[in-house]
Amino acid sequence: MAQGTYVEKSFERDTNYITDRIAADGEWPVEAGRYRLIAARACPWANRTIIVRRLLGLEDAISLGLAGPTHDSDSWTFDLDPGEVDPVLQIPRLKDAYLERFPDYPRGITVPAIVDVPTGEVVTNDFAQITLDFETEWTEFFREGAPDLWPQDLREEMEPVMHRIYTEVNNGVYRCGFAGEQEAYDKAYDRLFTALDWLEERLAGQRYLMGDTITEADVRLFTTLARFDPVYHGHFKCNRSKLTEMPVLWAYARDLFQTPGFGDTTDFTQIKEHYYVVHTDVNPTQIVPKGPDLAGWATPHGREKLGGRPFGDGTPPGPPPEAERVPTKDNPLVGPDGMVQVEA
Amino acid sequence: MAQGTYVEKSFERDTNYITDRIAADGEWPVEAGRYRLIAARACPWANRTIIVRRLLGLEDAISLGLAGPTHDSDSWTFDLDPGEVDPVLQIPRLKDAYLERFPDYPRGITVPAIVDVPTGEVVTNDFAQITLDFETEWTEFFREGAPDLWPQDLREEMEPVMHRIYTEVNNGVYRCGFAGEQEAYDKAYDRLFTALDWLEERLAGQRYLMGDTITEADVRLFTTLARFDPVYHGHFKCNRSKLTEMPVLWAYARDLFQTPGFGDTTDFTQIKEHYYVVHTDVNPTQIVPKGPDLAGWATPHGREKLGGRPFGDGTPPGPPPEAERVPTKDNPLVGPDGMVQVEA
Repeated sequence: MAQGTYVEKSFERDTNYITDRIAADGEWPVEAGRYRLIAARACPWANRTIIVRRLLGLEDAISLGLAGPTHDSDSWTFDLDPGEVDPVLQIPRLKDAYLERFPDYPRGITVPAIVDVPTGEVVTNDFAQITLDFETEWTEFFREGAPDLWPQDLREEMEPVMHRIYTEVNNGVYRCGFAGEQEAYDKAYDRLFTALDWLEERLAGQRYLMGDTITEADVRLFTTLARFDPVYHGHFKCNRSKLTEMPVLWAYARDLFQTPGFGDTTDFTQIKEHYYVVHTDVNPTQIVPKGPDLAGWATPHGREKLGGRPFGDGTPPGPPPEAERVPTKDNPLVGPDGMVQVEA
Repeated sequence: MAQGTYVEKSFERDTNYITDRIAADGEWPVEAGRYRLIAARACPWANRTIIVRRLLGLEDAISLGLAGPTHDSDSWTFDLDPGEVDPVLQIPRLKDAYLERFPDYPRGITVPAIVDVPTGEVVTNDFAQITLDFETEWTEFFREGAPDLWPQDLREEMEPVMHRIYTEVNNGVYRCGFAGEQEAYDKAYDRLFTALDWLEERLAGQRYLMGDTITEADVRLFTTLARFDPVYHGHFKCNRSKLTEMPVLWAYARDLFQTPGFGDTTDFTQIKEHYYVVHTDVNPTQIVPKGPDLAGWATPHGREKLGGRPFGDGTPPGPPPEAERVPTKDNPLVGPDGMVQVEA
């Protein structure tokens, strides 16, 4: 959910979150089965957490609740679940878990959020920290072969890259789409495409953002790229070119999409529904476009020629648990085993 | 201007026009200098008349008045002219010429319209007939080398092609963009892309719609294709693919764009402003996208290999009169002589 304010007609994201952390030795101790990750497949910030949880194999340690794509002005809701309540938390709205924690919670009800199941309270909605904590605090529950997405020796180098991706790309598309006037939009557009040109260049000679192996930085970039043509290009007027017209980024995005954990957690139907139905200020008719054609996502990307070891010393995850598969109707490239079917 | 009604939430264009004709031996006789064509560069239906007038060299016989791109709910206006009045008709709004003819004129004020200068009355706004009459009634005023855009021996074959282009493509994009509900939009989208697939196939082996030579049918298709990526793809949700992603149609459109009369009458800035500012039901913020990148329009299209004689027994027109040139700021591919600068 995009919570923010306007400063001289420019959209500025509200970055005040509930910043508690679940940590091995903190107030909220790491404990398998105690916490529930509440995400929504539509939301790029939440999609990150779904990807990282799957790459690391934390499915058994941290359960997953999924809000539907079209929240109301008040809260994300569990309208896709039987009886329209989350089956574990037994609440119809994510807001209920926020209020359980802070009865006067004044800010937006955002996903991802982690809820402490015994008390029903939101522990944190600090999306940027959530995945980093998955990667560092939950190691004892990792699957065999889990990759190192936040390698100690790369963090210093990763931080400015991830910062630029956050301010210029992840948030940059929102700055375009929610601009309140032409000048703010024009500036936002230039900033966004300046950053995409930088990435196009950076990724031309290396397979992933930090080199040979997938890291947290790639996860963060991927969720914006996956939404680019279905939503941001038209709905947010990020239309210098489609992702499909930026050859390096498009090949990079397909490479990740075809890697277990990425494309198989992407629900194009929910993504489009979310933005086009929720943002009535931008799309008052609430009509959801039928396009774009998605077939290209399954085509050969040719990035293997750059070498690289996608999972480093680790291995790719197997098929997702049956209950967590994206239905083929929502992502036609996902097969019955929940994995992306790559074109030969 | 899109005038129409809704039948079960589907947009249906109002096709009641003032159907008087200017003809060699009619109530409104053909007479050089007597009539003024009122167009707007933004409007695809009006753009047709600008193209045909230029291809035939009727500039001296029929003068041209241009309304600005962002009309109000009442009328197209002459807000780009000095003093915001048409310099010949001396009226601020096109509506004034409609009311001069019919004081109770009940329908939409549309371009193109032809005005009888002595009386200031609109003679006709029947856009489909206007270009056909240019081609058949005004022959004595044609430039040397004017092409035959409506050849006698092809008319029977052209009519169903032009009809399909009108209902499925020219109007098909509006049917997508103005759909009042999801189901009407979905049907409109399928109809539109079915027709574009048909055209992609039809044009794969022949240079123009009717064969070797440009005809009225090509003019009619071109004005929709020129607006496809800048407007219809995003604003009207015609987003299965961009024009740039339909290889045959994209090469065909570039071929025409680079032919004198087509690209040099295309004003991308006015086109975008018109749709994004006027349709507040679709784009309430009235923010105009900066994209798409237009550079591709000047790149080689390779269609010469299909042979063909673009102007048949005729020749291309020279540069447009200075007063009628599209400014480079509105179409970066137009050079100082008003002609499209083609990439070598």
